[in-house]
Amino acid sequence: MISNSIVYIVLAASVLALTFAFIFYKQMMKQDEGTDLMKKIAAHVRKGAMAYLKQQYKVVIIVFIVLAAIFGIMAYFKLQNGVVWFAFLTGGFFSGLAGFFGMKTATYASARTANAARKSLNSGLQVAFRSGAVMGLVVVGLALLDVSVWFLVLNGTGLLEAVGAENDLITITTTMLTFGMGASTQALFARVGGGIYTKAADVGADLVGKTEYNIPEDDPRNPATIADNVGDNVGDVAGMGADLYESYAGSILATMALGASAFATAAVEGMQFRAVLAPMLIAAVGVLLSLIGIFMVRTKENAGMKQLLGALSRGTNTAAVLIAVATFGIMYFLFGKETGEYANMWWQTSLSVVVGLLAGVIIGKATEYYTSQSYKPTQKVAESSKTGPATVIISGLGLGMLSTAIPVVTVGVAIVLAYLCANGFNIEFTAVNLSRGLYGIGIAAVGMLSTLGITLATDAYGPIADNAGGNAEMSGLEPEVRKRTDALDALGNTTAATGKGFAIGSAALTALALLASYVEEIKIALVRIAGAASDGMAKVSDTVSWTVEQAKNASLVDFMDVYSVNLMNPVVLVGVFIGAMMAFVFCGMTMNAVGRAAQKMVEEVRRQFSTIKGILEGKAEPDYERCVAISTKGAQHEMLVPSILAILVPILTGVILGVPGVLGLLIGGLATGFVLAVFMANSGGAWDNAKKYVEEGNFGGKGSENHKATVVGDTVGDPFKDTSGPSLNILIKLMSMVSIVMAGLTVTCHLL
Amino acid sequence: MISNSIVYIVLAASVLALTFAFIFYKQMMKQDEGTDLMKKIAAHVRKGAMAYLKQQYKVVIIVFIVLAAIFGIMAYFKLQNGVVWFAFLTGGFFSGLAGFFGMKTATYASARTANAARKSLNSGLQVAFRSGAVMGLVVVGLALLDVSVWFLVLNGTGLLEAVGAENDLITITTTMLTFGMGASTQALFARVGGGIYTKAADVGADLVGKTEYNIPEDDPRNPATIADNVGDNVGDVAGMGADLYESYAGSILATMALGASAFATAAVEGMQFRAVLAPMLIAAVGVLLSLIGIFMVRTKENAGMKQLLGALSRGTNTAAVLIAVATFGIMYFLFGKETGEYANMWWQTSLSVVVGLLAGVIIGKATEYYTSQSYKPTQKVAESSKTGPATVIISGLGLGMLSTAIPVVTVGVAIVLAYLCANGFNIEFTAVNLSRGLYGIGIAAVGMLSTLGITLATDAYGPIADNAGGNAEMSGLEPEVRKRTDALDALGNTTAATGKGFAIGSAALTALALLASYVEEIKIALVRIAGAASDGMAKVSDTVSWTVEQAKNASLVDFMDVYSVNLMNPVVLVGVFIGAMMAFVFCGMTMNAVGRAAQKMVEEVRRQFSTIKGILEGKAEPDYERCVAISTKGAQHEMLVPSILAILVPILTGVILGVPGVLGLLIGGLATGFVLAVFMANSGGAWDNAKKYVEEGNFGGKGSENHKATVVGDTVGDPFKDTSGPSLNILIKLMSMVSIVMAGLTVTCHLL
Repeated sequence: MISNSIVYIVLAASVLALTFAFIFYKQMMKQDEGTDLMKKIAAHVRKGAMAYLKQQYKVVIIVFIVLAAIFGIMAYFKLQNGVVWFAFLTGGFFSGLAGFFGMKTATYASARTANAARKSLNSGLQVAFRSGAVMGLVVVGLALLDVSVWFLVLNGTGLLEAVGAENDLITITTTMLTFGMGASTQALFARVGGGIYTKAADVGADLVGKTEYNIPEDDPRNPATIADNVGDNVGDVAGMGADLYESYAGSILATMALGASAFATAAVEGMQFRAVLAPMLIAAVGVLLSLIGIFMVRTKENAGMKQLLGALSRGTNTAAVLIAVATFGIMYFLFGKETGEYANMWWQTSLSVVVGLLAGVIIGKATEYYTSQSYKPTQKVAESSKTGPATVIISGLGLGMLSTAIPVVTVGVAIVLAYLCANGFNIEFTAVNLSRGLYGIGIAAVGMLSTLGITLATDAYGPIADNAGGNAEMSGLEPEVRKRTDALDALGNTTAATGKGFAIGSAALTALALLASYVEEIKIALVRIAGAASDGMAKVSDTVSWTVEQAKNASLVDFMDVYSVNLMNPVVLVGVFIGAMMAFVFCGMTMNAVGRAAQKMVEEVRRQFSTIKGILEGKAEPDYERCVAISTKGAQHEMLVPSILAILVPILTGVILGVPGVLGLLIGGLATGFVLAVFMANSGGAWDNAKKYVEEGNFGGKGSENHKATVVGDTVGDPFKDTSGPSLNILIKLMSMVSIVMAGLTVTCHLL
Repeated sequence: MISNSIVYIVLAASVLALTFAFIFYKQMMKQDEGTDLMKKIAAHVRKGAMAYLKQQYKVVIIVFIVLAAIFGIMAYFKLQNGVVWFAFLTGGFFSGLAGFFGMKTATYASARTANAARKSLNSGLQVAFRSGAVMGLVVVGLALLDVSVWFLVLNGTGLLEAVGAENDLITITTTMLTFGMGASTQALFARVGGGIYTKAADVGADLVGKTEYNIPEDDPRNPATIADNVGDNVGDVAGMGADLYESYAGSILATMALGASAFATAAVEGMQFRAVLAPMLIAAVGVLLSLIGIFMVRTKENAGMKQLLGALSRGTNTAAVLIAVATFGIMYFLFGKETGEYANMWWQTSLSVVVGLLAGVIIGKATEYYTSQSYKPTQKVAESSKTGPATVIISGLGLGMLSTAIPVVTVGVAIVLAYLCANGFNIEFTAVNLSRGLYGIGIAAVGMLSTLGITLATDAYGPIADNAGGNAEMSGLEPEVRKRTDALDALGNTTAATGKGFAIGSAALTALALLASYVEEIKIALVRIAGAASDGMAKVSDTVSWTVEQAKNASLVDFMDVYSVNLMNPVVLVGVFIGAMMAFVFCGMTMNAVGRAAQKMVEEVRRQFSTIKGILEGKAEPDYERCVAISTKGAQHEMLVPSILAILVPILTGVILGVPGVLGLLIGGLATGFVLAVFMANSGGAWDNAKKYVEEGNFGGKGSENHKATVVGDTVGDPFKDTSGPSLNILIKLMSMVSIVMAGLTVTCHLL
């Protein structure tokens, strides 16, 4: 008999992750930070980054208070249960905390990485990678902490009953989803704000420094250099941390909810409970295996680039293979002794996990193919620089659009396979097959993200190496050191491609799983409404009303029927249109935000170059602070509108178009957002590396007209790959989360 | 009693349109073509354009023969009826013919317009506009000719029975839809091929001429100049003509099919027939009113820009208001005497038409706001040139993405309103409400396009004026004349914005209407299959089989149920993903095609500049022919793959994912394609006009660094607004058309 106490394994895994994060942090702090100049520069960056984060949290806290208050009011009017507002706050809090710890580590690690790189490439790698691992472990640790503690509290105590809600696994898991909404909201602000910050600084620094004055990247004479390095931390570290925290927690929570609903009526005792446990246990074991992977990342003293890449890949690949094997073990432990209907469930569901893992790998490889200068597509973008910046842009956009094919087809195949594996290869569209299939899709996403501890480490390692390079350049270390940090940086770019594949793929699968959770939440709302109504009936449509019993027994398929959520319903279609539009409008807003903020930065940098005497000769120090302040203000100012839009549109759609409109919105936003995100990430990545390819001496090399043309591409690509593109991942999930939390309102009042 | 003979009114309207087209053509030909040099240049352009069109038709004919053969084979295996292959061919033939006539007229008109502009602005306007009207009238005339003759043949004779099909209005109208597929296929090739041609030449000419050698647009020293002018004709005239022919015919045919199915079971005699007639009659009356509008376009001898614009707007606005009024008359004539259930139908359906007209106007205005240099958005793009080409690109992309909001919301509101008006404001989702509502959406699209005779005239007038300017420049006419042709050209750019609004909006509505036709075709296939089966049953799914009677009586809602076309079905969702991807991949292919073809052009122009002595001093003539040949070859070579992809993907989706997958594909392609098309058209338009705004003397004016930055934007925008964007309009409809024609195959064999 498997009891609630098994969740303590999850809690233990969380503590383990946090402990090792602390150990790695301490190890890193013990390293020497280098010369006084290096320390000074690192302190500058650290100060700027912390100052920004503080400002960002100030704004975010207000938004959280307002939203929590709204949930409180909704609870008062019985549109939500009374735990939601607090679960929402903890999700946001832990997500912010993960970003904070990760960034703090990163800002301490950059100078130390640069200093270690003075010794050898391997030393540099060790410091940077272990510091990245802090981020990876903090994210998975805090996520599992929040998930396991909440589950223990809600399932073990009578808290839900105390606030007047049902105390079953469906209610518990859907309540916990609101914790996911907290994480999503925090992540959106972190991604959008951080993304605007980093790209305003980067674009601003490049446009004036590189293009107009021909001074190299990270040159201390450029007033925006510090802001640019701060940006790497607040955008690529804190922003990405919050982003993946949300993906990770979201996929686990959504799958728990799907498990609760898929096996709610299972005749076998404890089936539902074990289905809810499965995603948590996979994630917990994933932590352990990620740790093993992290310790495998070490290389010989005189390792070259290839060995470095090999070292990182060895770590991530080992973790992935181990989790695939372990999954079969976990599933056998949970479901291996079943007979009859569920006899094959353990290996079938395991296959869904493997499908998810494989899909992530394929998307990662495709991303690498389209964005690495080792392959033809990016080389062709570089070649198009022969005919100027316009053709660089055209070919980069063309590449990005074409590059959507493999990820979309892969996710499409993965959806079908994960679905079919989990329901015993039964394509017939029945309520049981559907809910078990959806559970398979959810658990595929969990599988994809189960090794996040190490994949995020390779991701977060990138900006640390980048900053180390900046530090080395600004503090005038020997060219040999800069060369080493460049190698570390380039390595980070390659691994980041794989990381992006997992992030995008899992976002699509998780969002899909959240659709089912939305319908489940509609059901809970109807049960609540019927229970509170004097006649015991909840109005579903003009012609249909349900009793508590009817609502409880309704399947996903019944909901599709009664709400006419089919593709002939014009309300659904309008929802799909609005969803598709939302993805574009959101991107347009963030692109424009970067454009505006960058323009201010450009003006400031130009002003400093023309008014501060001796700045170009390196005799006078530029006013770094002012550039930091401009980026901070710009990001703060610009992140609010798109983020609030992402929260408001699903609410308004619900109030106007009702349930079918919301589902249309979520599908439209998911499909278009997913494709748009891949397009933007890959176009941006290809432009970046096309520039690097030219810098490596191809098509005229650095300083040539061709190089200038690729710099234009890189500059356009900056907001593509680091602001708008990644924000879309969160947008599609946040819209689902908001809809889930607002389901009670949508059911109660809607215009159409 | 309203009989079949009323269709002769439609035939008469068609003959009227064609007669006036012929008269306008003759009038234009009587004008003097100007100096010998002007004649020579015009002949060059004409020759190049005709040569290209011939080449394009050669390729297209092969595709048509292959497809017609496939339809023939399908008819043999009872997967289609035996008329389809021929209807398909006539659709393609008439569409091609419309493009051919329009382009022939345009190439004769350009020198004559330039020559008339030597006299006065008004004379130039008259020649150009009347020549544009030839195109408008030929398109509507040929479309109505094909529609009315086919209807008379199919409804009057026993042709369908002779080929073994049913002889009812549903079969007649769905068979006629295949004629729409012919038009769509032709249009796709014309748009893609013409779009690649024109932009390869334009981009190539600009990149070397303007950017590298600083010689003005249309300078005879530029070897790509003739190709550029040819491009205006094959892309903007022939391509657009085929495009709108398809939209126009498609909306009428789809609405006829919707009318046939919505009123198939109506108890009132002749109701179904009258519902089928309505779209044809609205279109027929629209021809007459367009003619009135065309005759209203005249202005005083010394008219300024404002008066010119006023003259054009007066024509189009009058036609639009008149058609709104006339619609109430037509509907009263058809349905005014009904009582009971249909008592209010005449004015309710008329309101749907008005909704369509209004939506078109709003989208047109929004397009103008976002793309005209008279408004802030485009001015801001121009301003961003202060910080170089990268920010021009970023802000232009941002603008385009934001600009999708108004059109999408407008279309969304129009869908809901047209739907509700037509079904008597009944939101309840029943089979009757649904089919009547969908008929309303279709007829809104017909309303939107009913004045195409004049709106297309204002569209086609643009490239004629553009070419006239080219001719004036190349033949060295006085600057005053060039100024006048520039004014005419600028006027064309503004009216084109409105035209684009109608094209995009109607495409969205028509595609939506085609979804219902797809389901109708599935029904016909099932009836056919059941009729041919030995047990009289057609297999619908693993658990459901239908008799002929059951299939015949099934409503749209029943089909949604039996095929599980709801948003929880993973197959539907995968379809939506693939559809969204298709829009991007298709754009990526066409963007890359332009990039590749332009690169070849750039190399050739550079080669000529460096090898032909005296070319830059104007002493030696460039080798224009060679540039024309490069564009022709490039376009031919590049148009094939994306076009064939557009045909293959819906077929493959059907064979693999079945009916729910296809419907998902169509919705995904429609929603994403629509938004993407608006984005690309508006970004492209804004970049073009931002450049013009700088050229008008703002932010440094012509020749400044800022100007160069906006030229980069304009160059990127070229394939956006003239190749990829408009092709999407056709893509979304062609995919529907292909699915409709292939419905028999999808029903019979599919993997999932």
